[in-house]
Amino acid sequence: MEKITSLQNKKVKEWCALHQKKQRDLTNQYLVEGKHLLQEAIKAKALECVLYVKENPFPDYPSYEVSQEVLNKVSMRQSDGDVIGICRRLEHQPTSNKRLLLLDEIQDPGNLGTLIRSAVSFQFDGIYLSEGCCDVYNEKVIQSTQGAFFHIPIVRMSLIDAIISLKKEGVKVIGTSLQESLPMKQLERYDKMAFLLGNEGKGVSKELLTLTDQNVRIEMAGFESLNVAVAGGILMYQYQEES
Amino acid sequence: MEKITSLQNKKVKEWCALHQKKQRDLTNQYLVEGKHLLQEAIKAKALECVLYVKENPFPDYPSYEVSQEVLNKVSMRQSDGDVIGICRRLEHQPTSNKRLLLLDEIQDPGNLGTLIRSAVSFQFDGIYLSEGCCDVYNEKVIQSTQGAFFHIPIVRMSLIDAIISLKKEGVKVIGTSLQESLPMKQLERYDKMAFLLGNEGKGVSKELLTLTDQNVRIEMAGFESLNVAVAGGILMYQYQEES
Repeated sequence: MEKITSLQNKKVKEWCALHQKKQRDLTNQYLVEGKHLLQEAIKAKALECVLYVKENPFPDYPSYEVSQEVLNKVSMRQSDGDVIGICRRLEHQPTSNKRLLLLDEIQDPGNLGTLIRSAVSFQFDGIYLSEGCCDVYNEKVIQSTQGAFFHIPIVRMSLIDAIISLKKEGVKVIGTSLQESLPMKQLERYDKMAFLLGNEGKGVSKELLTLTDQNVRIEMAGFESLNVAVAGGILMYQYQEES
Repeated sequence: MEKITSLQNKKVKEWCALHQKKQRDLTNQYLVEGKHLLQEAIKAKALECVLYVKENPFPDYPSYEVSQEVLNKVSMRQSDGDVIGICRRLEHQPTSNKRLLLLDEIQDPGNLGTLIRSAVSFQFDGIYLSEGCCDVYNEKVIQSTQGAFFHIPIVRMSLIDAIISLKKEGVKVIGTSLQESLPMKQLERYDKMAFLLGNEGKGVSKELLTLTDQNVRIEMAGFESLNVAVAGGILMYQYQEES
């Protein structure tokens, strides 16, 4: 196939459109960048095609050779990249519910990605995102997961419905809140636990906090404010399943 | 004073130059944005002057009324802001060394800001940054600290010198490393502790790891990778001074 060099090429326009959530929703596709993330996408059977400059690291997949200018146009990065993958969305349901994360309106892609990465590191079984969370197929999210993105089921749904259904299955749902909450160290361990974290500015919505089994706060000697990805990391570390 | 409306104004050019580390180093000044951060800067006696559009929230300080266009030019944000402060650098030495953070070549401003925020939340006494860490006066760093920036002494110096000198003062220096390290839960508490965290890609440099009293790893059931700000948050939470 001929090398694509024109920024006006129809394919190039289609790829660039994947920077927008609307287009990702429409096509069920998203972009990942860099060799490491493409390798992870391959393991997860999500890779559909490859755009590369000069050498193709994944010749077994449908591929397009493109100029550096075209690749940079499709890329979200500042510096020259060399390979971008077009992936297909695959939504899996968690197959176990021993350790889950529930995320209510997380807005920052870096925070969402970091939470996904920690959830995989602490071997959580799945993540439920509220409708108001930022799009998980956003490239900054995928980049911040450092590949972990492909290793955990992530489901977007109403957290009210998720909490009600998890409680019926015997999962203890633990909210996070600075008010009317138990110091985290007093929280017991349960066989099945789900941890609910909230928006960067507002925290977990009041409505959801009334549905949980228990609300906890992370004990702090000083200034009462933690980044949500840090708070989530501390909780997941502390309550990961013991091996 | 007359309202500044021209992007060519000499003052506007000077303020914009503060986006560059070189200029910040030269003038000893830096920018902060938004009412909350300016209030924190005032408490820390760091605010020198105010740029505002329409209403001045801090009329007791030297102020410049500017057009929205000028403010946006000086701002690092995408959306319209309303107030920016020019601050003066004030370096303080930690006055206690019971709990310290040592940061080796942290590159990402968001990670550095989040680590500073957690350190203040867990009432750490100070932070030492290696020469290779990103500039702490970078606006993204200050933004990510959510105001905590002004509440903790931060010193940039050789970490080799810092570790040698802290050990002489009886501070236990704890490195972080996945290799040849103790699981964190086996680490004792000491009266004086300093925690050493490293670069996002490479971790703590080998040379520094040989100088520590002990190296630890955060136990993970799954994928062995955590964001450095999450790892730092877990350590600081666990070993904060008990009140």
